[in-house]
Amino acid sequence: MAAAVSPLAPRSFSNLPEIEGVRFASGAAGIRYKDRTDVMLAVFAKGTQAAGVFTKSKCPSAPVDWCRAKLKAGKARALIVNSGNANAFTGNAGVQAAKLTAALAAQATGAPANEIFLASTGVIGEPLDASKFDGVLEALSARAAPDGLLEAAKAIMTTDTFPKVATARAMLGGAEVALTGMGKGAGMIAPDMATMLAFAFTDAPIAAAALQSMLAKSVERSFNAITVDSDTSTSDTLMLFATGAAAKRGAPKIVAANDRRLAPFKGALDHLLLDLAHQVVRDGEGARKFVEVRVTRAATAAAAKKIAFSIANSPLVKTAIAGEDANWGRVVMAVGKAGARAERDRLAIWFNDVRVADKGQRDPAYDEAEVSKLMRGAEIIIRVDLGMGKGAATVWTCDLTKDYVAINGDYRS
Amino acid sequence: MAAAVSPLAPRSFSNLPEIEGVRFASGAAGIRYKDRTDVMLAVFAKGTQAAGVFTKSKCPSAPVDWCRAKLKAGKARALIVNSGNANAFTGNAGVQAAKLTAALAAQATGAPANEIFLASTGVIGEPLDASKFDGVLEALSARAAPDGLLEAAKAIMTTDTFPKVATARAMLGGAEVALTGMGKGAGMIAPDMATMLAFAFTDAPIAAAALQSMLAKSVERSFNAITVDSDTSTSDTLMLFATGAAAKRGAPKIVAANDRRLAPFKGALDHLLLDLAHQVVRDGEGARKFVEVRVTRAATAAAAKKIAFSIANSPLVKTAIAGEDANWGRVVMAVGKAGARAERDRLAIWFNDVRVADKGQRDPAYDEAEVSKLMRGAEIIIRVDLGMGKGAATVWTCDLTKDYVAINGDYRS
Repeated sequence: MAAAVSPLAPRSFSNLPEIEGVRFASGAAGIRYKDRTDVMLAVFAKGTQAAGVFTKSKCPSAPVDWCRAKLKAGKARALIVNSGNANAFTGNAGVQAAKLTAALAAQATGAPANEIFLASTGVIGEPLDASKFDGVLEALSARAAPDGLLEAAKAIMTTDTFPKVATARAMLGGAEVALTGMGKGAGMIAPDMATMLAFAFTDAPIAAAALQSMLAKSVERSFNAITVDSDTSTSDTLMLFATGAAAKRGAPKIVAANDRRLAPFKGALDHLLLDLAHQVVRDGEGARKFVEVRVTRAATAAAAKKIAFSIANSPLVKTAIAGEDANWGRVVMAVGKAGARAERDRLAIWFNDVRVADKGQRDPAYDEAEVSKLMRGAEIIIRVDLGMGKGAATVWTCDLTKDYVAINGDYRS
Repeated sequence: MAAAVSPLAPRSFSNLPEIEGVRFASGAAGIRYKDRTDVMLAVFAKGTQAAGVFTKSKCPSAPVDWCRAKLKAGKARALIVNSGNANAFTGNAGVQAAKLTAALAAQATGAPANEIFLASTGVIGEPLDASKFDGVLEALSARAAPDGLLEAAKAIMTTDTFPKVATARAMLGGAEVALTGMGKGAGMIAPDMATMLAFAFTDAPIAAAALQSMLAKSVERSFNAITVDSDTSTSDTLMLFATGAAAKRGAPKIVAANDRRLAPFKGALDHLLLDLAHQVVRDGEGARKFVEVRVTRAATAAAAKKIAFSIANSPLVKTAIAGEDANWGRVVMAVGKAGARAERDRLAIWFNDVRVADKGQRDPAYDEAEVSKLMRGAEIIIRVDLGMGKGAATVWTCDLTKDYVAINGDYRS
């Protein structure tokens, strides 16, 4: 496992506000790791509304199945997340482990098991011994406090080299509401619905159905716009919990996602999720460069995203960036193979602000020395203009280094 | 570039028969490399029939455009292939370079330019100076000989560590006909129609339309069933040339692909193309393991192939194999993300003959020591049974090693 913190890690953590109605605690259940925490509990005030999006994998983990089923009622009283074991591809034993975890959490918190949400991350295919949570969850429930978010984010790390937290604020009616969030993930990152694991919390009084609608939309421009290695996890889970505590301070109760008063909140949610999603890319296994891929003037928005991901997932593009080589021929290759509409002779390509190709051939004016210099930076923007329509998309990825191979050639054993 | 020959290279070369009506020569035009050959010429007897399949890239190279246009008549008199420059994404200059190459070859061979086929491989986006072929092609034409295939295969190598040639024989009516072939490719290998570059030659008297039909079918089970790095080239070209010389020895002239007398020839063609395709995988950049992925009992054949490629292209599966780790959880992940029908609780997975997972969970009976031992071998079979229908597919790939990153982080510069 990578010992050093990613060179792309944020320089400092956000000053995290407390969200009224949410308390956190973390501890060590000894699932797999030694000498570190591996389980976190979030306890929610009565009436907390919940929304979630999950992996599209045909082989989802037992906790994903559990959450999907319980989410229908839209109510949440607790969230338990463990690292070290994904409880995925564990058959009926996995279903029972999820049930036992929820039962123990219900006992510890006094909340109904049906309003408890679960997520697990770590190795796939090993049975999860949920009896290890016995006693631990009671202790966590007893000491859960509003300021425990950062420690909770540390407890759910696997190959992550830093905890991922973020915050945002917005006006709702006349009252200020707050959002905080945490995420984890470094490899197996190509979310097809949500990312590995991310959780957001707010005191805004917004009903579950409206939360769900906003979350599904916001995820398309954040977690569903990142990739580390094109591999989609069995456990991708993104949930949003709203305690409603801001109603006491005058925030209006919102029922519908199209309520105009939600506009600032939507902006803050987008900001929060994008911040967390970028942090996942910045902690991409072995990553040394943070890469933004912008595709403009594609035939449609869907075509733009398809082409952007074809570039962002290409091993040849990603290794060229690791080698600090502005190899735009490989960008051409990735556009060509994407399967979306493109015309070779209309293509233009930029690295940062330098146009390297135009109208289907090398831009004769570009300065190789200038491009070589910008490729040595830690942040690179690849822009591709297709000259066809109005579709645009931006996605984010990292480079592919020898460290990615080292980390993943020696993960399980 | 990798200096050492791939450890997966064939131990010896086939004893290559000469194909009556085909002569080869190779030489140095100084396109990019020093101290090696970089251009090959094949000269065909009058009446030679041709078929071809090409990249589906939306950004095809100029030679691909040229071949597609000329192939309509189905007749071939010469083939020129250069390495060092792909003549891709080179705009109108690239079109002119292709035209000039064909004109020079026409002059050198006395054949009409319309019956000359071209392919180029190497760097993308650099203008190809075709005037460098002036004089060279005349010399090649003068010394072209039936035994030049192996040297020709060497002239078209780029990051390849060994030349790729193969042969097969078949009865056609009462006469024996021969096939030979050559291929190149090591990276940017995820053919979507054909591979990087491969050419096959036969003396069988088969008309172009029948050749085309057989080639399109055979490629699905050979070049379109391999992947090194999921990146599809702009230059993928596979062509088959039939001189018809075997008619003199009594081989019947074949016009239709559904002629029953073609059955042995079809088998030989499949064998030849699969041999060449496997050699491309065995020379995959940085490869240390040759991996066969077999998917059985999928809902449809298309679903089986989609799932097989999802496994074969997964960086996490490929790095696990590089690390000799039987990490079947990552195989589960790749099945789940493929987007084809699958049911977690029906899945079974084998490494070679050892079943590691069954009915959606770990096989309790499997012996970890036995699996660890087989993972140290150079050839690994991953088998996945979906328990759903009758669809099956087999594809081939290699592992993902630090050497792949090293080779591709420093290719152009």
